Amino acid sequence: MQREMSKIMSSATILAGGRFSGLTPLLAPRSVAVLGASSDPTRISGRPIAYMLAQGFQGGLYPINPNRTEVQGLKAYPTIADLPETPDVAIVAVPAEVAAPAVVDLAKRGVKAVVMFTAGFAEMDAAGAAAQAKMVADARAYGMRILGPNCLGVFDARRAYYATFSSSFDSGWPVLGRIGIASQSGAYGTHLYTLARNRGIGASLCVMTGNEGDVTVGECIGWLAENPEVDVIAVYAEGIREAPGLIAALQTAKAARKPIVMQKVGRSELGGKAAKSHTASIAGDDAVTEAVMAEFGVMRARNSEEMLDIAHTATRKIYPARNTLGVITVSGGAGVLISDVAESVGLAMPEMPPDAQETLRGLVPFCAPRNPVDATAQVSNDVTLVKTFTESMVRDGGYRSVLGFFSMTASSRRWPAIREQLNAVKAEYPDRLYVLSVIVPPERRQELEADGWVVHEDPTRAVVAIDAMGRYGAAFAAPPALPAPVVPAVALPPAAPTEAEAKRLLAEAGIASAPEAACSTADAAVIAAGRIGFPVVMKILSPDILHKSEIGGVLLDVADSGAVLEGYRVLMERAKQAAPHARIEGVLVAKQLKGGVECILGIHRDPVFGPIAMFGLGGIFVEILHDVVFRRCPFGADVAEQMIRSIKGAPLLLGARGRHPADVKALAEMLARLSAFAVAAGPRLASIDLNPVFAMPEGHGAFAVDAVIEVDA
Amino acid sequence: MQREMSKIMSSATILAGGRFSGLTPLLAPRSVAVLGASSDPTRISGRPIAYMLAQGFQGGLYPINPNRTEVQGLKAYPTIADLPETPDVAIVAVPAEVAAPAVVDLAKRGVKAVVMFTAGFAEMDAAGAAAQAKMVADARAYGMRILGPNCLGVFDARRAYYATFSSSFDSGWPVLGRIGIASQSGAYGTHLYTLARNRGIGASLCVMTGNEGDVTVGECIGWLAENPEVDVIAVYAEGIREAPGLIAALQTAKAARKPIVMQKVGRSELGGKAAKSHTASIAGDDAVTEAVMAEFGVMRARNSEEMLDIAHTATRKIYPARNTLGVITVSGGAGVLISDVAESVGLAMPEMPPDAQETLRGLVPFCAPRNPVDATAQVSNDVTLVKTFTESMVRDGGYRSVLGFFSMTASSRRWPAIREQLNAVKAEYPDRLYVLSVIVPPERRQELEADGWVVHEDPTRAVVAIDAMGRYGAAFAAPPALPAPVVPAVALPPAAPTEAEAKRLLAEAGIASAPEAACSTADAAVIAAGRIGFPVVMKILSPDILHKSEIGGVLLDVADSGAVLEGYRVLMERAKQAAPHARIEGVLVAKQLKGGVECILGIHRDPVFGPIAMFGLGGIFVEILHDVVFRRCPFGADVAEQMIRSIKGAPLLLGARGRHPADVKALAEMLARLSAFAVAAGPRLASIDLNPVFAMPEGHGAFAVDAVIEVDA
Repeated sequence: MQREMSKIMSSATILAGGRFSGLTPLLAPRSVAVLGASSDPTRISGRPIAYMLAQGFQGGLYPINPNRTEVQGLKAYPTIADLPETPDVAIVAVPAEVAAPAVVDLAKRGVKAVVMFTAGFAEMDAAGAAAQAKMVADARAYGMRILGPNCLGVFDARRAYYATFSSSFDSGWPVLGRIGIASQSGAYGTHLYTLARNRGIGASLCVMTGNEGDVTVGECIGWLAENPEVDVIAVYAEGIREAPGLIAALQTAKAARKPIVMQKVGRSELGGKAAKSHTASIAGDDAVTEAVMAEFGVMRARNSEEMLDIAHTATRKIYPARNTLGVITVSGGAGVLISDVAESVGLAMPEMPPDAQETLRGLVPFCAPRNPVDATAQVSNDVTLVKTFTESMVRDGGYRSVLGFFSMTASSRRWPAIREQLNAVKAEYPDRLYVLSVIVPPERRQELEADGWVVHEDPTRAVVAIDAMGRYGAAFAAPPALPAPVVPAVALPPAAPTEAEAKRLLAEAGIASAPEAACSTADAAVIAAGRIGFPVVMKILSPDILHKSEIGGVLLDVADSGAVLEGYRVLMERAKQAAPHARIEGVLVAKQLKGGVECILGIHRDPVFGPIAMFGLGGIFVEILHDVVFRRCPFGADVAEQMIRSIKGAPLLLGARGRHPADVKALAEMLARLSAFAVAAGPRLASIDLNPVFAMPEGHGAFAVDAVIEVDA
Repeated sequence: MQREMSKIMSSATILAGGRFSGLTPLLAPRSVAVLGASSDPTRISGRPIAYMLAQGFQGGLYPINPNRTEVQGLKAYPTIADLPETPDVAIVAVPAEVAAPAVVDLAKRGVKAVVMFTAGFAEMDAAGAAAQAKMVADARAYGMRILGPNCLGVFDARRAYYATFSSSFDSGWPVLGRIGIASQSGAYGTHLYTLARNRGIGASLCVMTGNEGDVTVGECIGWLAENPEVDVIAVYAEGIREAPGLIAALQTAKAARKPIVMQKVGRSELGGKAAKSHTASIAGDDAVTEAVMAEFGVMRARNSEEMLDIAHTATRKIYPARNTLGVITVSGGAGVLISDVAESVGLAMPEMPPDAQETLRGLVPFCAPRNPVDATAQVSNDVTLVKTFTESMVRDGGYRSVLGFFSMTASSRRWPAIREQLNAVKAEYPDRLYVLSVIVPPERRQELEADGWVVHEDPTRAVVAIDAMGRYGAAFAAPPALPAPVVPAVALPPAAPTEAEAKRLLAEAGIASAPEAACSTADAAVIAAGRIGFPVVMKILSPDILHKSEIGGVLLDVADSGAVLEGYRVLMERAKQAAPHARIEGVLVAKQLKGGVECILGIHRDPVFGPIAMFGLGGIFVEILHDVVFRRCPFGADVAEQMIRSIKGAPLLLGARGRHPADVKALAEMLARLSAFAVAAGPRLASIDLNPVFAMPEGHGAFAVDAVIEVDA
């Protein structure tokens, strides 16, 4: 009877019709079978049963072992066929050569999912990769999903579901809570959950995807986003293998206002190599993953502590879209440190209104009422000052987030009275984010958390976490982005087009180049130059020479007809020397643009996320400073303008220090159109380089001066 | 008798003849008097006595209180005059109006130092500042030093000396150890020591300087550097008020191979303001303080955790000058994260030698032997593999630092055996830095620390601390810098010199300008231009117009004699319009340099540290990207070249991506000469701007094109 009830609960309350509900049998099953179940609770195939028995899993639990009638006190079944019901999920820890056929048996029986601990697949060698691919294909043919292989599994302490052989429970069971973890690495997933547990943070659901032969970390994020028992999602990833699942998951989480904090490793080249050898991961370009995270308001944590700080703070579910920080303290000192950190992360700490400052100064003459607000040791004489000061901050200062810095004061005899005053303000204004930086023993910390405060020992970590809440709020509150521009169908030629062809293709999508003409004779070039106006630029025109400047195939400042004639001769000569077999179609004569800001617009096809747009300023900005921004295609002009404004060199375009502002609107429109063009061009498009693009002074447009399109055969 | 012994110990073993030994009576006194001592051990003037009694201070301890014959069990004396001996130090907590005369009485009695808790001085208002200045002058007349006023005092747990009213001891006494803390803020000093104590880190000596009316944080650092009981110095500063003491202290610490880690707040403008209001500090320019820290190899910590991580790791006293990191683990995953952090901080993680990799692969076929080195779960079957693998890393890989990432493994049953294997390697190669990233309970942590491992829970924090040890090692091992160039005496004119005068002054110091001539008539300009060679630059010449380009007073690309004539007319006209009362001396005609890289060299006088040199690339690099480097003057060409190479845009000078390298040697020589010039010019020099300087292609020198020298009246 109890078991029946539990089944109803499991199946009914969770994830009825979401996009990711197909993972429910895997991640929240009603019944579990364990293939090759061991009687020894310390062995890999014994641990899941031991854990589930110890914690009281309420669903069906079926050991399968032909050599035993009983395993750890449960009836054992000789084969899959003998099971009294079809389990939702089966745990497989048998050796690789037995695992693959077992998957087929399980699928035939109608089992919906497998958690596969077994190693020796794609992480080992090419043969292992092939075996893994076949096994997954077999399972998919029956609609069965596989977590792993070579994974540490999944656990959900709330359901006492432990399809994992992690030994981390030797040192304690998870703290129940509303943070869900999805990790590609098993070692790091349990590392993180253990850190959370030791800090008393409730992260009790953890999925570890291992080789990702089938189920990806993206899908797991999506399932957590749809899970009503999860409010905050913490992710550890080494390389994203599949885009649609991840994108849908990030959309789902954003729509559900569930913050995601992600530790994405493999940022360094060194890191990239290690990732490859360790998880057989095709490490996607880190910058691309970062762009996707930014697109959906995912916060990137620098380390596990920051990840837990942010995840834990997010469980309060207060995400101020226009975040401001007010700091209250009863001793100075840390105020400077807090201001430093706030400025470095970009969190606003506006001053208190002048009249409110005046009022507070009337109460305590030597207080610091600006922000940080220091009520001074005067509160020893009158503790109600803490409430008066904090209340004024929330009411008059209007701060969306309040940080109380009390350090060791929170361990003193004065603290209970101060806490009472602080709680009174909190009760009056419950919509703010309340955080404390205090040094207290764990039990006092838990009291304060129960009061509704988020407790961080270190004030700088507190500021970083508070700032993250504002960024979530801004992402959740952002209006829907503009649609990408509509561009006509793109018919890519079979091979890389010439510059002129490339520009013609781009022009059809509304991407303007500098006025120019393709000329197959020197006389035609003279006539074209006269029409366009001197000075002009001359470039060699050949489908076989893509990087013209490298062979001296570009002439600048060509000033008159004589120079055009001479230039034609020089270009033909150079082309012949550098590339004797190249087809030469003549020269391109173009207007030389002056007074614009040099930019680079580019597209490259990421193997996982498809066409990615890049924007940067020309020359050293891209080459030496790597001051560029990326975005998944396509996007509208609003996003394009955000990209342009986000680079460090943006002031150069926006009119810093007396410069004339460039035509950023035209530049943004061009970038958006390029993103739409890249999608319209289809998967044969390998890359586009518009380098340079001149952003002319405001109102005068933006023009591509060179265009290179690379096409896959 | 016991007291006598203690006196001998106190006075003899510490700080005999160092530069900072004058602070010994203050920071390690043989005897202490407490003015206005209270019988109530919870009152400010009662606490020091209560603490010293509780912890067993071995020197003389003399309460002074005219109203009592006994205080907390000690004989009390009515006045200073009644004391049986002259105490080294007196603690003063009486109100400000009584404190100042008391200081004179104490000085007359021969007391060598005062710890003054009393507030109401410079931190309050101008009158308070004046009272503070007078009090300090009175004390100095007698050779007496004052810590504070408005300070939280000093404690040294090793000597049971507690001249502080901090309530932080309510929650426990310091852990004895070899980290000394010097802090301008009392609140933050005790915050830091409390964090250290809670982590079991020995930081038992802490000086807090408050208003710094007399004793500065710099002097305290120096005293800690000379103290044989201190190995590592942790500093918290808001603004440096005095340079010579700090510089001498940093030199002393470096010579003694004692690492300093410093948290310097006030980095942000916001922070700067808060610092001012809170400690009446004249916040020195943060960039200048950072340059001074870099000069002496001081590490800057971003927060208290990083400060303690670094300080604690440094207590092992292993500072590898050419640091390399080898990582050993028995499960993958964190390797990528560790590689990411190592790359971001610049810590080398070279691969294991190929033959060593081969050998390890022979032992465990699927191990990852590169670095990070993963011995895999195979160690469950043969734990000696841990020793074999780690030994190979230390012996064959030659890593100077070894990080073991064992996370939860360190809480498992396998751990004692693994620990034994690791310790065996450690014993064999004791000269390396050994660090563990593990999740363990405090008692296990203490065991590992006793074994000689540094334990960090978080691997990223471990990497940052390991990297810091290498930076200390490099600073300690650095050869002495070259002497600054010798320049002739500089005779600054009474007011700001013209550009031509400025260039002449600089030329005497060997700082070259572009060929040029000052011309007081248009005809002279034509002749000069012909001699210099076209094109030339023309600039207005006036002692009253410093920033010429702002009034259109600079003409570029002047191509021939006609243009010179016309240019002369235009410049005179513009000067007359923009500055009708300016004295106009004519124009400067100069060679227009082409093909150089535009740089800015500057000097500005910092109120604390004197002349500071700045180097950056021209234009947007300085204005928008703030890509500049600072250094205290003077310095030699080696330091100048390090500065030039340290900026982000340096590749532009060094010949990145096919560029011709610039004459960095000549540029460095110019920068070093400028630094020597700035010192030779004396305190009336306010600033110098050489903007632009053209660094010509290698072998062709560097030339200042404009020079502005500002002089204080």
